[in-house]
Amino acid sequence: MLRRGLLLILSSPSGAGKSTLSRRLMDWDRSLRFSVSATTRRPRPGEQDGREYYFRSRDAFEAMVREGQMLEHAEVFGNFYGSPRGPVEKAMAEGRDTLFDIDWQGGQQIRNSALGRDVVSVFVLPPSIAELESRLRGRAQDSEAVIAERMAKSEAEISHWAEYDYVIVNNDLDTAFNDLVTILQAERLRRDRQPQLADFVRGLNREFSAR
Amino acid sequence: MLRRGLLLILSSPSGAGKSTLSRRLMDWDRSLRFSVSATTRRPRPGEQDGREYYFRSRDAFEAMVREGQMLEHAEVFGNFYGSPRGPVEKAMAEGRDTLFDIDWQGGQQIRNSALGRDVVSVFVLPPSIAELESRLRGRAQDSEAVIAERMAKSEAEISHWAEYDYVIVNNDLDTAFNDLVTILQAERLRRDRQPQLADFVRGLNREFSAR
Repeated sequence: MLRRGLLLILSSPSGAGKSTLSRRLMDWDRSLRFSVSATTRRPRPGEQDGREYYFRSRDAFEAMVREGQMLEHAEVFGNFYGSPRGPVEKAMAEGRDTLFDIDWQGGQQIRNSALGRDVVSVFVLPPSIAELESRLRGRAQDSEAVIAERMAKSEAEISHWAEYDYVIVNNDLDTAFNDLVTILQAERLRRDRQPQLADFVRGLNREFSAR
Repeated sequence: MLRRGLLLILSSPSGAGKSTLSRRLMDWDRSLRFSVSATTRRPRPGEQDGREYYFRSRDAFEAMVREGQMLEHAEVFGNFYGSPRGPVEKAMAEGRDTLFDIDWQGGQQIRNSALGRDVVSVFVLPPSIAELESRLRGRAQDSEAVIAERMAKSEAEISHWAEYDYVIVNNDLDTAFNDLVTILQAERLRRDRQPQLADFVRGLNREFSAR
């Protein structure tokens, strides 16, 4: 019996290191599939359709939702964001794990969906709010109004930390990354994620009978 | 709020490497407490009361069971074995994790007890039955009758593999040991095993309010 891929959901307020952790995890395990979100917001300079996001018109996005092609979707700051279902189900069927870099709304919807039992969810907390704000400001690309908006969203995001299976406090990026790898490796050792063991144990039993 | 210690239960047929893995894990993490079992069997040469086992008379053992001092107990090959409750509850209250090297009967009893939600259970499978038998014979201390008895017990033990949270196939001792460490580390990152995070997040919220 083929192993079914799991869904690794990573959430955190922006500035807590989630995107860096995601990128490092994708580099560490080339078999992982990253779930590229669809969005109705306009591309920023350097962003590429299908890489950072699938950029879609509002009409096209709403059609996908209507046709059940979105695993989850939500509106944030007036734009829609969502995770297309097709690539995720394909990866699962191939036994490949999928990484989601999404917020608490997306996490909640996938956890409460039919795929909930395949979810492993990890919340990354910043060491402090001062540190979070300084990382946001360090990007030096956003206006005060945007930073205020993001800090408010961060507070809302953090209020959902207790809905996650695992929590990592990102005091140090290397330690946080090791924690994330540890979680993924351990989850792959769970009995219910190793269906091929049923055959293996049947083989052991045949060996006992043949003694 | 103080972290509550977890109960790491390691089971396997004898010869699959469980005792070696236990010893290495105890060396790796000096904060772990090993649950020394009580037994009514007689000590073998070199065994010391309180180290390998608590050696007790049948009367003393039965009194402990009657007084609820055993977390679990079972009869194997005419002798009683059991895990004394006191030291485990003390370690848990101190936030220390306890390692149990016990069989499926003990594992089942602890999992079904009031402490069930604190259990992390790991089953170690041998790569093959031929390998298992060769390791048993390698000890060169047991008669044919004893080996036959152990092989029958191994078959019974393996039949319970699917009751465990995690399964490790011990093809290679170093890999199996890393898997075991990974499981313990990941379980410590589970949100419900980090109750101190509630205070930490309250601190973050105070920081938000003070901005």
